[in-house]
Amino acid sequence: MLWLIGTGLCDAQDLTVRARSIIENADTVYLEGYTSLLRCSIPEYEEAIGRPITVLTRTDVESGIERVLQEAKQGDVAFLVIGDPFGATTHTDLYVRARNAGVDVRVIHNVSVLSAIGATGLELYRFGHTVSIPYWQAGFEPTSFLARIAENHARGLHTLCLLDIKADEGRFMTVREGIEHLRRAQEREKSNLLTPDSLIVGVARLGWPDQCIVAGPLGDIEKTDFGASPHAIVIPGKLHEIEREMLTFWKQ
Amino acid sequence: MLWLIGTGLCDAQDLTVRARSIIENADTVYLEGYTSLLRCSIPEYEEAIGRPITVLTRTDVESGIERVLQEAKQGDVAFLVIGDPFGATTHTDLYVRARNAGVDVRVIHNVSVLSAIGATGLELYRFGHTVSIPYWQAGFEPTSFLARIAENHARGLHTLCLLDIKADEGRFMTVREGIEHLRRAQEREKSNLLTPDSLIVGVARLGWPDQCIVAGPLGDIEKTDFGASPHAIVIPGKLHEIEREMLTFWKQ
Repeated sequence: MLWLIGTGLCDAQDLTVRARSIIENADTVYLEGYTSLLRCSIPEYEEAIGRPITVLTRTDVESGIERVLQEAKQGDVAFLVIGDPFGATTHTDLYVRARNAGVDVRVIHNVSVLSAIGATGLELYRFGHTVSIPYWQAGFEPTSFLARIAENHARGLHTLCLLDIKADEGRFMTVREGIEHLRRAQEREKSNLLTPDSLIVGVARLGWPDQCIVAGPLGDIEKTDFGASPHAIVIPGKLHEIEREMLTFWKQ
Repeated sequence: MLWLIGTGLCDAQDLTVRARSIIENADTVYLEGYTSLLRCSIPEYEEAIGRPITVLTRTDVESGIERVLQEAKQGDVAFLVIGDPFGATTHTDLYVRARNAGVDVRVIHNVSVLSAIGATGLELYRFGHTVSIPYWQAGFEPTSFLARIAENHARGLHTLCLLDIKADEGRFMTVREGIEHLRRAQEREKSNLLTPDSLIVGVARLGWPDQCIVAGPLGDIEKTDFGASPHAIVIPGKLHEIEREMLTFWKQ
């Protein structure tokens, strides 16, 4: 059996009781460590769950997963995914490959940034298409996130902007870098959707004890120090009264 | 301190280790029991967590919450919410009222239907505005969900349709009733967005051991017996290859 287990966002205390019991009884424990970032180190996590963990890189998961699937045919494999197993396409792909290889797969859900973002007070059901803002590099300077933000905005919907995470390289896009990429994309597309006065919400370390949420004009948020990674940005759409009231808690 | 704690979707094993420890040390434990449905009974839940639970009705939460806030000023109150604390507006409202009353509030997230719906294989970031389909009654026959589904559809986005839950009255809308309401709304609005051939996904008991997901033409899904509540419907938008492949696992 392949158990795809969400870890939640912070440390081993965010595992569910059911997940802990499955991990205790599993033959091997893997952790996919390149799409997000936990608060604690791997040795701390191993100590908390009382099991050794094999950390997998993107290459391991995308092209060397056969060994894991083979193990899951013969025993119980706990495959930990930061957040929720269905928070990123790469794990849906893993699910499909496992099923097609004849492996039994079970999923233990947990919270991901896609739902914990509700902590801002912006209602989850009023979010539109989620966008990703990748680090620009030579020959790869996408701006397509801008059109999606504009479409959401036209419908009064909020946009969650996931900021690039290259855990393998130790690079995590900050709120400030995210805003910088939004600005460069606007210049490229000759868009004036966002101005320094536009209301945006910056978040850092969602679900961690020192979680940080700040709402305000883009020009101010860009100058705000959000501290350690991971970060994310929300561009609010039309605000309901209760949402407006929630956001006042996060003013600087 | 008021601890807003998500229970996850099934039973007390879905609480996180952190949540269990907070509940053990809390002075009182409440459960908001009208926006969703757990698999186990309250006595079973109490037995699992080793604490007595006071179940609150909608009226308790919306107009009789002062006593709970008072307790949270003097001690630690664990307030359990089925799914995630920010899955429904009513709890955002509770958060605001608590903060405005000078109560310290902390949130322990968990999975809600809004994120567990990723188990269908439809990518969470490609969902648009979530809609609710309420039971029609004399003088209250809303059709606004239809326009939102159409807007999502026009953008190629998936729509999660939350089906009415009146836990206080023991009424939980089924997939079949949801489709019936969609049809009546289409007749009212002279819309032909959905036909008997439209691909839809019915889900039941998401996150439970007997979770049921069936994908197929609306005409077939309407005749499918999904068993016990709670149910939900997804109307897929444009499918990516990996999503198409996932949905083949849920064909009848």
